[in-house]
Amino acid sequence: MAIVRSPRNPIISPADVKPSRDDFQVVCVFNAGVMRFQDEVILALRVAEKPINSNPDVELVPVYDVTAGNVVVKQFDRNDPKIDVSDSRFVRTPTEQYLSSLSHIRLARSKNGVQFEVEAAPALAPANEYEIYGIEDPRITSIDDKYYISYSAISPMGSAICLASTHDFKTYQRHGVMLCPDNRDVEIFPERIHGKYFALHRPNSGEYGRRDIWIAESTDLVNWGNHRWVMGARENSWDNGRVGGSAIPFRVDGGWLEIYHGASKSDRYCLGAALLDANEPWKVLARSKTPIIEPEMDYETQGFFGNVIFNCGALVEDGKVKLYYGAADTHMCYAEIKLEEIIKNLA
Amino acid sequence: MAIVRSPRNPIISPADVKPSRDDFQVVCVFNAGVMRFQDEVILALRVAEKPINSNPDVELVPVYDVTAGNVVVKQFDRNDPKIDVSDSRFVRTPTEQYLSSLSHIRLARSKNGVQFEVEAAPALAPANEYEIYGIEDPRITSIDDKYYISYSAISPMGSAICLASTHDFKTYQRHGVMLCPDNRDVEIFPERIHGKYFALHRPNSGEYGRRDIWIAESTDLVNWGNHRWVMGARENSWDNGRVGGSAIPFRVDGGWLEIYHGASKSDRYCLGAALLDANEPWKVLARSKTPIIEPEMDYETQGFFGNVIFNCGALVEDGKVKLYYGAADTHMCYAEIKLEEIIKNLA
Repeated sequence: MAIVRSPRNPIISPADVKPSRDDFQVVCVFNAGVMRFQDEVILALRVAEKPINSNPDVELVPVYDVTAGNVVVKQFDRNDPKIDVSDSRFVRTPTEQYLSSLSHIRLARSKNGVQFEVEAAPALAPANEYEIYGIEDPRITSIDDKYYISYSAISPMGSAICLASTHDFKTYQRHGVMLCPDNRDVEIFPERIHGKYFALHRPNSGEYGRRDIWIAESTDLVNWGNHRWVMGARENSWDNGRVGGSAIPFRVDGGWLEIYHGASKSDRYCLGAALLDANEPWKVLARSKTPIIEPEMDYETQGFFGNVIFNCGALVEDGKVKLYYGAADTHMCYAEIKLEEIIKNLA
Repeated sequence: MAIVRSPRNPIISPADVKPSRDDFQVVCVFNAGVMRFQDEVILALRVAEKPINSNPDVELVPVYDVTAGNVVVKQFDRNDPKIDVSDSRFVRTPTEQYLSSLSHIRLARSKNGVQFEVEAAPALAPANEYEIYGIEDPRITSIDDKYYISYSAISPMGSAICLASTHDFKTYQRHGVMLCPDNRDVEIFPERIHGKYFALHRPNSGEYGRRDIWIAESTDLVNWGNHRWVMGARENSWDNGRVGGSAIPFRVDGGWLEIYHGASKSDRYCLGAALLDANEPWKVLARSKTPIIEPEMDYETQGFFGNVIFNCGALVEDGKVKLYYGAADTHMCYAEIKLEEIIKNLA
């Protein structure tokens, strides 16, 4: 398909982001929620930080300390055989699975959509027991005069979904845990359908190893129910490993278009689209035969976790879908594609 | 503690239950929800059935077929090295984890609380895509003039929680998936607290291996949110493996008493109690120092899955807690204990 990447990619790199404190470094900036607000494009970036560490014998792990009310640093001996650092994303002890970095949400603003100014301080940072290991992968939905931000909250209790809202992208209200562990990838629809709110979500069934897209309903955006299964991985396809929703669904002729991510069994993440029924959005009418975009460029194939294109938001303007995406779990990139190209490739 | 078991235990055995069809046998009857209704005690039994099978070389697996609208039998070759039947509860193929039996919900009725007449036909049986592998472990809550039954719905998508209701224990209304996979052990509180409904639940975090008790709120019993963590396993205790709610919480002096099940790391299931705050029931005030009841009798230590005492409901009458419990995942038993004994053992 005729996907056009920005020649400025990556448009935001870790070096462009000021650490939240002097003893930390930004290691990844990726998976941003997107919203056009007034005359700007706003990205709600996921910023992952690690303590600066010059000692190769130790691993420093940042965690939010609920009692202290701030982030503290735990130290582990890398030479201890009980400490497992074989996966760069984790530090595993016999009793706990720490994340090697701690994520918060940071805003970046742009007038032209590709050159961004990153704010100096976090917009939302870990603040309670559900967020001890960080907050990740925000999606922003505009409903009436408010902007709702759903994000993954990681803690020893698992990966839950929390909800926050804002009127102005300056102050935020938190609305608690919206979906209990394990869940990720929540996209609240921008309109009520027959009077109800809907959200796509991606429960993680440990019992059955399934990571499929579901949908839930709500009357108040806080309480969710009537969960329905929407779609799963497809054998013999680019998305044969697992799937999750990515961008906020938007209306097209014949239904809702959802940009979703699909991983192969070997953890290669691409983006595709699913056409959902206009009135019964749990019904999938068509899906992308081939990915909209797949990891091809060096900045997509190499990084903290390579071969990953992951998206949390898009703008749909001028007949184009403008994709802001995390590449290789390391930096933010931009690409655009004509909406009609995506539609044409559905089957 | 002074737990008194019925001399009639087990009070209901598989032989007491008529199979739902001629080619099936009842292998387990256990984990019943309990309700006093009119002049009777009603048990909502979990009845597990298997196809009658005289061929030791094959394994017959019953599953609900959504398209056909009934239960069909799948056949597997036990000599095929790719078919794993090492755990009696499962038949595992390279791509799927079947349950070796299929559960439905069956009523039993009693005037004296220990001698039960088991109905001839299921009250609730698998009926949709979320229930392909059966419906399990019902809990019954009386609210206003209705009885709400929450149960685990098992399918290849995981273990979800479904809700049904009845006025008369004759006809039932289904209310869809209340909590998405993986979840189990839902107990809806019998009263609103400051205008809101509450339910304990037990999400299963595959990512972090946690099986802890959470609580959710609702305004309509269908949509649930504001999830909060309540309690987990305790090191150096009888419940050091995992916990889940068991009986419907009931009011006592100083709060709500919840009978819960706790398993040790070696999967020995006992019952204990937790005292929850009267107004903020996510706050645990005290827990049983030692189990209320633990597997000791032959009918508790030996069976389909031995060393299990599992409870889905109790009656609180005459200062006593009357426990109906599944023993060894095989049969229903009864025991009672003075409420004051349970309270005295809290710390």
